[in-house]
Amino acid sequence: MTRSGGASVYRPLDVDTVIDYVRNRPEARAHLDTSGVLEAVEVGDGNLNLVFKVFEAGGGRSLLIKQALPYVRVAGPSWPMPAERAGYEARALALEHRCAPGLVPEPYWFDEVLMLNAMENLADQRVIRFPMMEGKRYRDLGATIGDFLARTLYATSDFALDAAEKREIMKGFFNIELCRITEDLVFTEPYLPDAPRNRWNPRIDADVADFQADERLKAEAAKLKYRFMNATQALIHGDLHTGSIMANDHDIRVIDPEFAFFGPMGFDIGAFIGNLWLSGASHEIHSPDPEARRAYRRYLIDEAVACWAAFEAGFRRRLEAVSSPSWASPAFQDDFVASVLRDTAGYAGCKMLRRIVGFAHVADLDSIEDLDERARAERIAIRIGRRLVSEHARIASFDDIVAIAAEALEAHDA
Amino acid sequence: MTRSGGASVYRPLDVDTVIDYVRNRPEARAHLDTSGVLEAVEVGDGNLNLVFKVFEAGGGRSLLIKQALPYVRVAGPSWPMPAERAGYEARALALEHRCAPGLVPEPYWFDEVLMLNAMENLADQRVIRFPMMEGKRYRDLGATIGDFLARTLYATSDFALDAAEKREIMKGFFNIELCRITEDLVFTEPYLPDAPRNRWNPRIDADVADFQADERLKAEAAKLKYRFMNATQALIHGDLHTGSIMANDHDIRVIDPEFAFFGPMGFDIGAFIGNLWLSGASHEIHSPDPEARRAYRRYLIDEAVACWAAFEAGFRRRLEAVSSPSWASPAFQDDFVASVLRDTAGYAGCKMLRRIVGFAHVADLDSIEDLDERARAERIAIRIGRRLVSEHARIASFDDIVAIAAEALEAHDA
Repeated sequence: MTRSGGASVYRPLDVDTVIDYVRNRPEARAHLDTSGVLEAVEVGDGNLNLVFKVFEAGGGRSLLIKQALPYVRVAGPSWPMPAERAGYEARALALEHRCAPGLVPEPYWFDEVLMLNAMENLADQRVIRFPMMEGKRYRDLGATIGDFLARTLYATSDFALDAAEKREIMKGFFNIELCRITEDLVFTEPYLPDAPRNRWNPRIDADVADFQADERLKAEAAKLKYRFMNATQALIHGDLHTGSIMANDHDIRVIDPEFAFFGPMGFDIGAFIGNLWLSGASHEIHSPDPEARRAYRRYLIDEAVACWAAFEAGFRRRLEAVSSPSWASPAFQDDFVASVLRDTAGYAGCKMLRRIVGFAHVADLDSIEDLDERARAERIAIRIGRRLVSEHARIASFDDIVAIAAEALEAHDA
Repeated sequence: MTRSGGASVYRPLDVDTVIDYVRNRPEARAHLDTSGVLEAVEVGDGNLNLVFKVFEAGGGRSLLIKQALPYVRVAGPSWPMPAERAGYEARALALEHRCAPGLVPEPYWFDEVLMLNAMENLADQRVIRFPMMEGKRYRDLGATIGDFLARTLYATSDFALDAAEKREIMKGFFNIELCRITEDLVFTEPYLPDAPRNRWNPRIDADVADFQADERLKAEAAKLKYRFMNATQALIHGDLHTGSIMANDHDIRVIDPEFAFFGPMGFDIGAFIGNLWLSGASHEIHSPDPEARRAYRRYLIDEAVACWAAFEAGFRRRLEAVSSPSWASPAFQDDFVASVLRDTAGYAGCKMLRRIVGFAHVADLDSIEDLDERARAERIAIRIGRRLVSEHARIASFDDIVAIAAEALEAHDA
């Protein structure tokens, strides 16, 4: 028997074969009664992978199998995508689990033949994007994500690792294909009038034409793209939007680090913050009651503030105890945190704009069926995104980011 | 016969065995009459390697063999240094030769068993540092180095390479050990009062104590170190001082790229500029005649200006024709060149200070035997170096760099 439980070549699993696979995999025994009756369901709702929940019949214990397909699931085999990305996810998840235990699913094993990761099944948690469209509030959401970011970004930076150690880890994260997706879909195509994968609500044609003609915006977006490609600050998650967070009322987890590579820290923080503002914009329609809308937007702003505060406090506490004398200078530390804040603003803006104009949208906005209503929400998001990108180099405190978001959110709230 | 001409394990060559080696190496036949009488001399004057000139008896054709020792030559076997660095040199030299033919020695072959590179012997060229101590002027020195920098740095940047292509090349340049030398010797130790490898002229004790207590200087040096470790802009030479340039009156070549890795472009430009200013400082003593001294310093400033001008013109000309729309924005291009200029200033300063306080000094200054005289020259260099590091983030044009150098050089010239 091979390490893949009988399989020696890659094949996509289905709800039947995944049960045989798990049954034959010795590591599964710690998590399931593999000699009893097992059931499986496919629950993948992402763009790229097969996801199976395998559980003891009658609803006992369970685990999750996430298998990479050799193409982009939403596009089909015409858009190939190396299944090796499962290896990036395995290595990143292991690192995150070590730095931030309890904030990611526990990894069980990685199968390099079938390109799958087996991990803890978060049976009772949901991807937060969808409940947030209905006004769901998660206690300590921002603080928890800020803590996750401080832990993982610090631990994989030059402040925690010797330069040789960091470069050895970097050798495992040349995540070329998934970086290319981000470079193309986030930083390049939304700014090009003729990119064939772009799509947007026809009601905002004029808004899109206007922003695609904004030379300052395009220059600042290019700087942020260049920095994404050239700042190997830390192992970043690479896709930390509200679709990559699962939670219930007492537990919050970050999932899906397959885009992980060594990049700028602000890209992760900005992804989360930008998605909070996208949610806030969408509540222009999702929350017709002005009082409820105002209150939910206040919640989102509070969580954004809490995220940055937790990140900054956790990161600075670790940095103040840094062992290398090079990084001990308080002026250096202040300057470094200020640069992460500027990046956070810029990347938040990029992540917002691409969700309205680029290939991959978000349910927060696309679920608004009336195109005129959707356009009202999208214009709020475009206004925030444009200002964050154009002005990111002048951001001096997190209050500046909040002011940009609040101005656009509250102007429609009067 | 193996590819190493008989050798299947690493061994250091000597003037006898290098002849046998060359004689048995088929690639040598294109460059030497390997059936005739050959002679060899060892000419290594660097810190790390054995260097042999192998030539036809009577002074006919020749080639050069540069073999990496598994330790730092100047320190001996107690400071190990992986001989694999010869592979970095081989890959970097091949790339430089392709981008800038005629500006580096022509590479002949790389032997991965003996860790040696065979290349064109520059029989008539000399390392320029030493003639420059005597006031030697090389026509078009700055413009030639600026052209080399524009060619090599552009060709290995994201502007010339697809992101995937660049990352594939980067995999061959995790030059961990040699980067560590730079990080320690250039960026860390000179700022630490108690670093055991530091050494300096006892007459400048007070100057050194003063700069090691300068918190702003240390914060700015830390930012430059962080950027050195985290900005994968291009394949940089990594050690481009005036000891890495050979020339005669009509030919200028850049040698010794064993420190090559993907780092900030300004590190290479700054290394060259900083070494011009070190030369200028040393002429405080080398040129006792005020008129001659002033004239030589004017020459050095002219070459520095010509270097930046050639770099900027060559780089911008290529960048203006860039194919990716992301980098086509004129505002982005201006901002990018401005950031390289700021880095150039900062790294020039770092490279100057480390030559006075750190482990590895330069002959320009160390050849001044009288310690009081040497201190006079060193204080000029320290003044320039400190200002360039401390003020690098405010440099807006190359004139600002020239003004900082000229102020210190000419104050002692009145």
